[in-house]
Amino acid sequence: MRFSPLLTDLYELTMLAGYVDEGMVEHRAVFDLFYRNNPFKGGYAVFAGLETALSYLSRLRFTERELAYIAGLGIFRDDFIRFLRDFRFRGTVTSVSEGTVVFEREPLVTVEGTLAEAQFVETALLNIINFQTLVATKAARIASVAGDAKIIEFGLRRAQGPNGGISVARAAYIGGARSTSNVMGGKLFGIPVKGTHAHSWIMAFPDELTAFRAYADAFPDSCILLVDTYDTLRSGIPNAITVAAELRSRGHDLKGIRLDSGDLAWLSKTARRMLDEAGFPDAKIVASNEIDEYVVESIIREGGRVDVYGVGTKLAACLGEGGGALGGVYKLVRINNEPKLKTTSDFAKATLPDRKRVWRALDPEGKFSMDIIGQAGDTVSPGDTVFNIVNPLQHTPVPEDARVVDIRTVVMDQGRRTSGRETLEALAMRCDSQLKALPEGCLRFTNPHIYKVSVTRSLNDLRLRLTEQISS
Amino acid sequence: MRFSPLLTDLYELTMLAGYVDEGMVEHRAVFDLFYRNNPFKGGYAVFAGLETALSYLSRLRFTERELAYIAGLGIFRDDFIRFLRDFRFRGTVTSVSEGTVVFEREPLVTVEGTLAEAQFVETALLNIINFQTLVATKAARIASVAGDAKIIEFGLRRAQGPNGGISVARAAYIGGARSTSNVMGGKLFGIPVKGTHAHSWIMAFPDELTAFRAYADAFPDSCILLVDTYDTLRSGIPNAITVAAELRSRGHDLKGIRLDSGDLAWLSKTARRMLDEAGFPDAKIVASNEIDEYVVESIIREGGRVDVYGVGTKLAACLGEGGGALGGVYKLVRINNEPKLKTTSDFAKATLPDRKRVWRALDPEGKFSMDIIGQAGDTVSPGDTVFNIVNPLQHTPVPEDARVVDIRTVVMDQGRRTSGRETLEALAMRCDSQLKALPEGCLRFTNPHIYKVSVTRSLNDLRLRLTEQISS
Repeated sequence: MRFSPLLTDLYELTMLAGYVDEGMVEHRAVFDLFYRNNPFKGGYAVFAGLETALSYLSRLRFTERELAYIAGLGIFRDDFIRFLRDFRFRGTVTSVSEGTVVFEREPLVTVEGTLAEAQFVETALLNIINFQTLVATKAARIASVAGDAKIIEFGLRRAQGPNGGISVARAAYIGGARSTSNVMGGKLFGIPVKGTHAHSWIMAFPDELTAFRAYADAFPDSCILLVDTYDTLRSGIPNAITVAAELRSRGHDLKGIRLDSGDLAWLSKTARRMLDEAGFPDAKIVASNEIDEYVVESIIREGGRVDVYGVGTKLAACLGEGGGALGGVYKLVRINNEPKLKTTSDFAKATLPDRKRVWRALDPEGKFSMDIIGQAGDTVSPGDTVFNIVNPLQHTPVPEDARVVDIRTVVMDQGRRTSGRETLEALAMRCDSQLKALPEGCLRFTNPHIYKVSVTRSLNDLRLRLTEQISS
Repeated sequence: MRFSPLLTDLYELTMLAGYVDEGMVEHRAVFDLFYRNNPFKGGYAVFAGLETALSYLSRLRFTERELAYIAGLGIFRDDFIRFLRDFRFRGTVTSVSEGTVVFEREPLVTVEGTLAEAQFVETALLNIINFQTLVATKAARIASVAGDAKIIEFGLRRAQGPNGGISVARAAYIGGARSTSNVMGGKLFGIPVKGTHAHSWIMAFPDELTAFRAYADAFPDSCILLVDTYDTLRSGIPNAITVAAELRSRGHDLKGIRLDSGDLAWLSKTARRMLDEAGFPDAKIVASNEIDEYVVESIIREGGRVDVYGVGTKLAACLGEGGGALGGVYKLVRINNEPKLKTTSDFAKATLPDRKRVWRALDPEGKFSMDIIGQAGDTVSPGDTVFNIVNPLQHTPVPEDARVVDIRTVVMDQGRRTSGRETLEALAMRCDSQLKALPEGCLRFTNPHIYKVSVTRSLNDLRLRLTEQISS
């Protein structure tokens, strides 16, 4: 699908027009995309959306109809419309890869190019990456407590319109969902699609048993029966067991049942016992209804026997404290070889100036020790002194036994993609393995361990110097 | 933009295939779309999304590529693919109009048609209407406390992908936003688009005054200057005043300034005084940064002097307690002339059976007294006894002086639209006037007045009879 360049805030256009007037469009600019607070008050985020963003950048151009609309606004001069007609993105993009676990204030994506091209793409990059990163993080939180149970993403009906639902399907898979109910998500991204029937199926038949039989006839090998339309324990599960026996007599297996209301921990244990006692230990139990990471955690703590969680609203809308939106921002850090800094009264909110690199220090087992942000020309070695990202006076050494790796790569050079497309499966595997490499406590939901992110001495010196210049 | 029929949950397709197998596709079905809890723990919702939904319904058809994808899933038979090839929506839709203030459990949209067509559209209708209704409600909450101040919708960068942002622009306008930063929102819906510049504009110049002057040169008649890049009171506003004087000497007016951080109530008062004293009483003050209805309320309570609120994240992501997602559902209420009811252990959560009408009782001043839901054949007159929607034993009379009006109309008949398109402006005006007709306290954010929604005696009797049948 085409992502129109009109999907932008008007101020990107007014600024561009201003830069045209001022003869500044060709100035060289560097912008960083980062966020200041981990979503959900958690210990990390899972970066996602890059592929979508690169697709946008590589196809960016205005159609004549779009130009006509802009001209019709009556606030731009003809020379600006001509400028837009030839406008393309030819910049360089450096980014962490999707599925990477990332932290507060790290430059996730850096865009370098002309001031015009690097500024203009702000709204689109934020729109794409903020939301996919948020969903991938939510999915990772749920998957990280679900143990061996699988996650199906169910959220289309509560997503922000059709394409919101598509982003949800993609990012949830990166974060740990194994399938989606969203058929378009399956078609676009090859994600396995799952689904059986609604309560309305049951109500469309004279009674529940007839409805179950009809469904089993239609899908004898992929039949999961929703058992809570009338009474889960007195009617739904007994009828499902009847149908399971009938399926078996014809050489098929009931795949499972779905619980969609009530006390899911208790019902899943009871359902498991009833199915086992009836001779159907392989029939799976699917649970849905307002599932999130806290519900999964409590079901598991109470010994619930859920095999698959269907997660909808709370994943698609990223509900939960500190959720709903990722506050990613896109800030100018360098222009015409001059590093730039935005100050505020709160030092912790100041931006980090200049073109940068981001390293991750791994311990001998491959676990993550700390991340380090430096200027592009810096090197980082074990034993180097690095500085706290929010407190420039506090410092710490890079562990002596660390292996230091650069976690970003150039993914687009002068508008051309330099990285191959990774499969969505590869991104999901990266996320899974990175979550396992986090220090203990980072995955915790309440008061998680704060992962250390430091800056090099040279970057620390630079930000202090620039802050002083602006304040004086 | 085309809304593909693949934007659906897989279970809509599996159910359809099942109905094909069972020879049930032509059964006559009636589904109601409703929600159970007002969003944001508020007293109402603003219905939105119908135009988008009707556009989807009237164009619903599978392309050959879409059919090939479905066939390739390997779970459907060829006869079902043939069925889908000819599948269209030819049903009848009855709905409240967009911009109408609505309440818990009211059937907002009713779809009547073949079981196949009425079932299949569930996911899409929920996706469209849940989100637009949620955004329109959030916008109405903000607009309802903003007094004469205007609302600009700024949320694209925090919306759920590009089309999430489009839905936000449309629904926010219905709810009370007067403009959007989203250029595509302007093009598609004719919403006025607004925007000036970012902090990066300031940082791209050697200093703030030079940056302000350049912007004023480029847009002498629509110049709003962002004053908080370095220091709002010591640098931003004084520099803006300098530029305002320069503009005036050339025959132009500075439109205003924008505050994007800090204590907005206090800063807006101080900025107003500084601008007034400098001779610029007409320069407007725009405030942004995490604005929602509670922030607006507090700014106004503290005597803030904000003329325009730029509302982004919290509107686009519908943040706030009870926000993030509207839990609208779509339930079968009648099949083959038989009213249907879904029971649960909680009577208040049971569905209301059968084809229905929804009336609103207005007092002689046109204020809303109560809504009444009845069976399609019912009539409602002043003095009639009606029953509490969640407590079938409690009853009340329709006020003797009430004028009772049907609040829904048939908007699509056998797949053809029967209503003209209303302008977005008309929908916004409806919303505004309906909010003013609500009983006192409905607009309150904390413990709002509960608007009375009742059911007719015949509908009350029917639900009691059906509940008894299922329980026995």
